[in-house]
Parts: sequence; structure tokens; C-alpha cells
Amino acid sequence: MARELNVSKDNFSKWYDEVMHYADIIDDRYPIKGVGAWKPYGYKSLKLMIQRMENLLDATDHNESYFPLFVPASVFEKESDFLKGFQGEALRVTKIGRRTLDEELIVRPTSETAMYPMFSLWTRSWRDLPLKIYQTVPVFRWETKMTKPLLRVREITKFKEAHTVHATKSESDKQIQEAVKVYKEFFDDMLIPYIMLRVPDWDVFAGAEYNYDFFTIMPDGKAIELASVINLGQKMAKAFDIKYIASDEKEKHAWQTCYGISERTLGSTLAIHGDDTGLIFPSTLAPFQVVIVPIGTDKKVLAKAESIKNNLTGIRVHIDNTRKRPGEKFYNWEARGVPIRIEIGPRDLAKKKVTIARRDNGNKTTIAESRTSKYVSELLNQIDKSIYSKSRRTFRKQIHDAKTIAQAKKILETTGGIVRLPWNGNNKKGQEMEKKLVGQALGYERDKKHLYFARTY
Amino acid sequence: MARELNVSKDNFSKWYDEVMHYADIIDDRYPIKGVGAWKPYGYKSLKLMIQRMENLLDATDHNESYFPLFVPASVFEKESDFLKGFQGEALRVTKIGRRTLDEELIVRPTSETAMYPMFSLWTRSWRDLPLKIYQTVPVFRWETKMTKPLLRVREITKFKEAHTVHATKSESDKQIQEAVKVYKEFFDDMLIPYIMLRVPDWDVFAGAEYNYDFFTIMPDGKAIELASVINLGQKMAKAFDIKYIASDEKEKHAWQTCYGISERTLGSTLAIHGDDTGLIFPSTLAPFQVVIVPIGTDKKVLAKAESIKNNLTGIRVHIDNTRKRPGEKFYNWEARGVPIRIEIGPRDLAKKKVTIARRDNGNKTTIAESRTSKYVSELLNQIDKSIYSKSRRTFRKQIHDAKTIAQAKKILETTGGIVRLPWNGNNKKGQEMEKKLVGQALGYERDKKHLYFARTY
Repeated sequence: MARELNVSKDNFSKWYDEVMHYADIIDDRYPIKGVGAWKPYGYKSLKLMIQRMENLLDATDHNESYFPLFVPASVFEKESDFLKGFQGEALRVTKIGRRTLDEELIVRPTSETAMYPMFSLWTRSWRDLPLKIYQTVPVFRWETKMTKPLLRVREITKFKEAHTVHATKSESDKQIQEAVKVYKEFFDDMLIPYIMLRVPDWDVFAGAEYNYDFFTIMPDGKAIELASVINLGQKMAKAFDIKYIASDEKEKHAWQTCYGISERTLGSTLAIHGDDTGLIFPSTLAPFQVVIVPIGTDKKVLAKAESIKNNLTGIRVHIDNTRKRPGEKFYNWEARGVPIRIEIGPRDLAKKKVTIARRDNGNKTTIAESRTSKYVSELLNQIDKSIYSKSRRTFRKQIHDAKTIAQAKKILETTGGIVRLPWNGNNKKGQEMEKKLVGQALGYERDKKHLYFARTY
Repeated sequence: MARELNVSKDNFSKWYDEVMHYADIIDDRYPIKGVGAWKPYGYKSLKLMIQRMENLLDATDHNESYFPLFVPASVFEKESDFLKGFQGEALRVTKIGRRTLDEELIVRPTSETAMYPMFSLWTRSWRDLPLKIYQTVPVFRWETKMTKPLLRVREITKFKEAHTVHATKSESDKQIQEAVKVYKEFFDDMLIPYIMLRVPDWDVFAGAEYNYDFFTIMPDGKAIELASVINLGQKMAKAFDIKYIASDEKEKHAWQTCYGISERTLGSTLAIHGDDTGLIFPSTLAPFQVVIVPIGTDKKVLAKAESIKNNLTGIRVHIDNTRKRPGEKFYNWEARGVPIRIEIGPRDLAKKKVTIARRDNGNKTTIAESRTSKYVSELLNQIDKSIYSKSRRTFRKQIHDAKTIAQAKKILETTGGIVRLPWNGNNKKGQEMEKKLVGQALGYERDKKHLYFARTY
């Protein structure tokens, strides 16, 4: 930790790798490419993110559950569209010790095929519906593309996937609206600007009815998918025999939805808000929202630091009383993205003052110690607002209108970002445009008059 | 749910399987033997258990982290004693899709070999020590013995494993004492009677220095290992190159400990406290500590139920306002082990009274509604005390002194439980005794004058 971080955010890819390591988020020196060991500091933040999503899901009557990691190959292979989407990157267990298994086990890349055989047992009557289940689990997709901590990984540590079962199409549509609302609130809390688009028909998940994706834009101009909200229709219900007895005593196939987010959300918000000095945490995700650095070794100063900490109720505060020099501590906690630093030394103590430094713009103020609690609460809000509005301005500038394919191509090749092109709503035409653009067709808005394209993670 | 549970606890094995299913803890009809799908009700309890352990570990300066699921075979095979212990039941990934991997990946049966290569990078100087890390993760051991939900499973859903690194032997010894204290407090909270024994030398984990195990006794007389606390010595540190520069500038190998618990704790406490009617939850683990059953459909009654719930601050309360008959609701929540039921009907409302029923002994009392909050808090404590002391009495009766192998054998074959036999402290002698007894040598107490034996899960 002694050496300083020495990389500019202009070189985003290098900046990101260095900062994630330097700021103790995750260590990617694990002996398998594309998986990393979470450092306690980073893991605290990941848990805060998950907790926030759990609260939102609990408040909308979702129930948490846990389904097994392994799926027998024969079950995994039941639905052909699903299989097509995932079999290529799915890990297969073929042996226990030296013994070969009779049937291979697939490591879940996502949990449809682990959950739905059980849903088939759990939904007997219309009274059992809706069934709204979520789980937070590691899932595995053995990517062959370049990996990147939190953004493109082979072990997704925290995949929070929700799966619901409904009696009718219209109830499943309503569920999609609820999920969209939950996700919007979540990304707002995480201070991530986003665009939500309807995924083109030729690219929907596992042959689903329809599918919304949330995207944000990384500092290098590439778009990244943050979440997917999918109306599965009845395809999986038919493959997995998820039926119920309706109130008219007839047996019917159910309708299903699913939606998920992962640590990409954390990686993206850190990527967006950070600067040349290192990370800047949104207050919701900051492992420590405030760090107190006592200057000198006077015991009275340390006691004062403790009392300030105790008065900051409901705020995550860390006192750095290690033996390092103050300058080194300042630098260290700035790189690690703590929104607010409080400095207190013998002179401040005498004057009943404290010095408060903002991570986002570096401003320092000295205030009466008695005002600390109120000041810090307000400042946390202010910093959030400030970094969020800055990121939204940047985001808006990264969405470009183009009139022709050539123009769009030029934008994607130079500044990057997301390009919006006129479209007639025809799928064949859309796929042609996608091919020419060497970018992904992210989706369209309700009116189907434009298609959005970007290079993606 | 309509049908009633119909099994006596005298037939423990059948009782346990039926109750775990009926009470919505876990569904073992998953298409792989020995792994189950957690129902939301059971999962709530598991999370409460984990949260309690996390609080204890956080309070003793452990840091939570997360390490990958897969370990390259060459890394997994670095330490021969560890390998001997786990390779037989470890799952091996050999393929991604149809492509064969260059190096097989082992699914962690426990995380030493995932963590220690990183520890080797993280501990450079004495200043980095002690390192105290824990994680809560699924681990996999493909048991060939008969499986049993939560007690003997192939996917351990919540393995909470702590791993520490120290500069000296004496610091590692102190860590073991801290871990033992944490575990004792934890099992006390979970209302589980236990015995802690030092594991015989011939049975310590992966050739460790020494090893304590915690055991309790199931209603069928078999002992079950709840936790293991291990001083690993320097063996793993040597295999994984975990070294540090000491304050005298010399490079030294570190000392390590590890200790873990799992959902066995939950399964055991439910097995111990339940009765012919179903589960009885300790209040710490109860998904709902109180269920309120409104009698009739009067809206005023429902409003009163809501207001009682709101006044029960800090208590997990569920109002059952489904359309079932009251008797069915009573039965349902009794089987699911809710410690306290509050009944309220139109007549109670008029008299400003509520009826309170205890799950453990079935007693019912009518009290003034205004007293509910205080009464319920005290009653939760009282129920905990009562079921705990009953279980401790049973536990003590299940530990038997025997003078001869023949006597001990007879006890194990009839009443079961744990048998204590005189021993001279000699390992060869101990192993002979173990062979003759057809039971496991659980361990010994400090004075090495007795060996403890039992049939085990």
C-alpha cells in the first residue's frame, strides 16, 4: 500500500484494473483467469449492494430461497432455446475423485433449470400463485472474451436472480412492470445513469416473449448491460411442466418472468464515479462513509475521535489510528473512495474544531466540532447529488443521434457511447444494421422508431 | 399442507424427513440425491443463524471475504494430508461445453486450497498479521453414505469457515481459544447442548497440530459433529508458501488455524427440540417468533391484529389472514414451530383481551391486550429456557460411563448416545478400542484419561 497509484483515468482499462486492486476491492491474482478473491473492504460494499436489493424485493413480496448449484445434464437440456444460449460456456462435472459419474452435472450459469423442476412441484393450484422467489448465488459462465474484475467474470459472485410464476399473461406483464420499477429505484440508489430498452426480438433470452435490458456507459465508451427483465411466456413452463388448476378446475400452464442483477452494478458505479486519485463511493455502497484521521499520537485526540465516531449514529465510520503518516492515510483513503474525511489534531481540539475534507472535489472546511453530526449527514447527500448529476451529464452526452449507418459507425469508432439510428421496426432490417455496424443492437423504445447500438462489455 | 403430519418422533429418522418437508424447511425432491431446495421459511431461519455467527466473528475482528469455488487440480493437490482427506469426495470439472479443459478444476469441499495461495500474497510482513478471514459459502462433498437434509448433504449450503494466519505458535493457540469461546456462545444461543473434545491424534484434520470438535446427540442416539476448531500448525503454510518478514527482518513460515460450522447446527437444534406435532424453534432462529391468528373475518379484528403486531417491536411477527379455518392455521403454525401464537376474535376484542398459546407445552392463557408486548417478550425467554433445560437433561442422560469395551458396545447398540471409556492416552490402544467398538472415537478431555465413543452421522 505504500506506493502510490499512478495511472490516469484517460486510460480507463488500465486505471480500472489498478484501482480495483489498489483499493482492496478484489484480488485477481487467483490461479484461475477471470475469477478473483474479494478483499474484505470490497466485499463489505458488495454486501451493502445486495442488502439494498433484498430490501426492495422483500418490500414487494418476493421470498428468498436457495436452489442447488448443480443441474443434471438431462434436466439442463430440457428446453432447446435455453440450452442453445448457455451450453457453450457451462462447466461440466464428470467425475467424483477418480470415479466417472453416470450422468454429468452442469454448474448453473443461471438457475432456471435448477428452480423450475421444483416450481413444477410447488404450484398445484391458482391459490399457490403468484410465486415470487429470489436467490443470491454465485453462477458460472466460462467466458472466452477478455475478462475484467466485476464486469466480465467467469464466477459471478453475487447473481441476484428473481423468478416468478403467474396464472395469466396479464399478471406476468404486471410483474414485469413491478420488476422494472424495483430496478429503476435500485440503480437510482446506486447513482448509476441508465437507459432501459426493449431487447430486439432476435436477441431475447431463451426464446422469451419479451425482454428489457438496462444499460449504462463506461468511461471508455462501451455500453454494459446491468440488468435483464424477462417475460418468459409459457415456453419454460411447458418444458418443465409447471401447471396449476385454475379456479374453473381446468389445468393450465403457468406464465413466468425472471430478472437479475450482479456485481456488475458495483463495478460500474465505481468505474463511472472514480477519478485519477482512485475510487469515489456512493454513500449507499461505501464500506466506510467517513474516515477519521487523528493527527499525532495525543491520547486526548484519539478519545475525541472516538467520541465523534459515536455521535455519528447510523453512519459507517472508521478511525485510522495506524502508525502511518497523516499524508499517507489521506492518500490511502482517498484512493479507496471514502466520501468524507475528518481530520482532528491537538490544535483543533483546543479550538473545538474539526477539519472536513470532501473526496469528490477535495474541498476542505473547518467547522465547530458540535456541528459535525449534522454537517456530515448533509454533506453525504450533497456529495451523492454532485457526483450523480455529473455522471448523468456525461451519460447524456454519450448518447448520440445518427442519421446513417456510416455516421453511426464513425461515432462508435471514435467517441464511442450509444448511437440511436432511425429504424422501421423490421427485424431483418435491424439485423442487417447490426451486422454493418460491428456493434450490438441494444434495443428500442416503445414506438419502435429507433434502434440503439453500442460496443459492449 | 391440508393433510396432517402423521409420524411419531419415536421413529426419529422418518419423523425428521417428514417434518423438514412438511414445515417448509427444505424440499429434498430435487433431481440430485443429497441436495435440496430451501423453502423461503427454512431459508429465513438459516439466514438468522448465519447472521448470529457473523456478529460474533465481526465482534472478534474477523473480516468477511469471498474466495472462488474452483481450485485448479495442481493447487488442490499441493498438500498430501489435505489431499488424502478430500480427494475421494471432491467433484471435478473436466469440460466446458464440449471442450475438454487443459487442467481439471476441483469444486471446493472446504476452502483451504482456494484461500492459501492468496494468503501467501497477502502476508508479507509481521505487520500484516494476524490475518483473520471468514466466508459463508456452499461447499461440496459427494457423500456415499445415506444423506439426510441439513445433517449429511452433498451441497452444504452455508459453510461458515474462518481461516487465520499468525506469526507464532502461541498466537495461533490463543486464536483457538478465541474460536472455542465464540463457538460455545453460538451453540448456547442456538440452544444446543454440546460436548467439546480434543480429536484423537489419528483423526485430526489434514495432519494438523491439534483439533477440537463439538458434538451433540440426536434423538436416535447418534452423535453429530457440529463444529471443528483446528490448529493447522505450519504444514499448510509450508505447502502454500505463506511466509512473513518478522520484526527481526528474518523470513518465517506463518502459523494457521481454521474453524467452521454449517446448517447442521440448524438441523440439529430442530431435531432436538421438535415433538410429535412438528418443529419447535429457538426464538433466535424462528422465522416468525409470533403468529397472530385473527378469528373470523371482522375487519376490526384484523385491524387489532395489525396494531398488536406493530406494538411488538423487535419481534418477528406474522399475521395469518388466509382463508383457512382457525384450527387448520393453529395446526399449521404449530408444525412449523412458531414459539407463540396469539388468537384474537370479536369477543376478545370486546373484552380487550387476547389469548396466548405456547408451542412448547400447549398452554393457553388469556391476558389483557395492553400487556401483550411485555408478556410476549418474557414468554419467548421462558420458552427458550424451558426447551433448553429439557434438552440439556436429555443430553446428560445420553452420556454414559462404561468400564469395559463389552459394556460400551452394548450401550452403543441399545440406547446409543456417547460412551466414555477409561484410556491410557496411548494412540495405538485407542485405535484398537475404536476398531472393536464399531463406533467413532470422538476424542478426549484435557487429562487424556478417557476416550469418548459414539455412532455418528
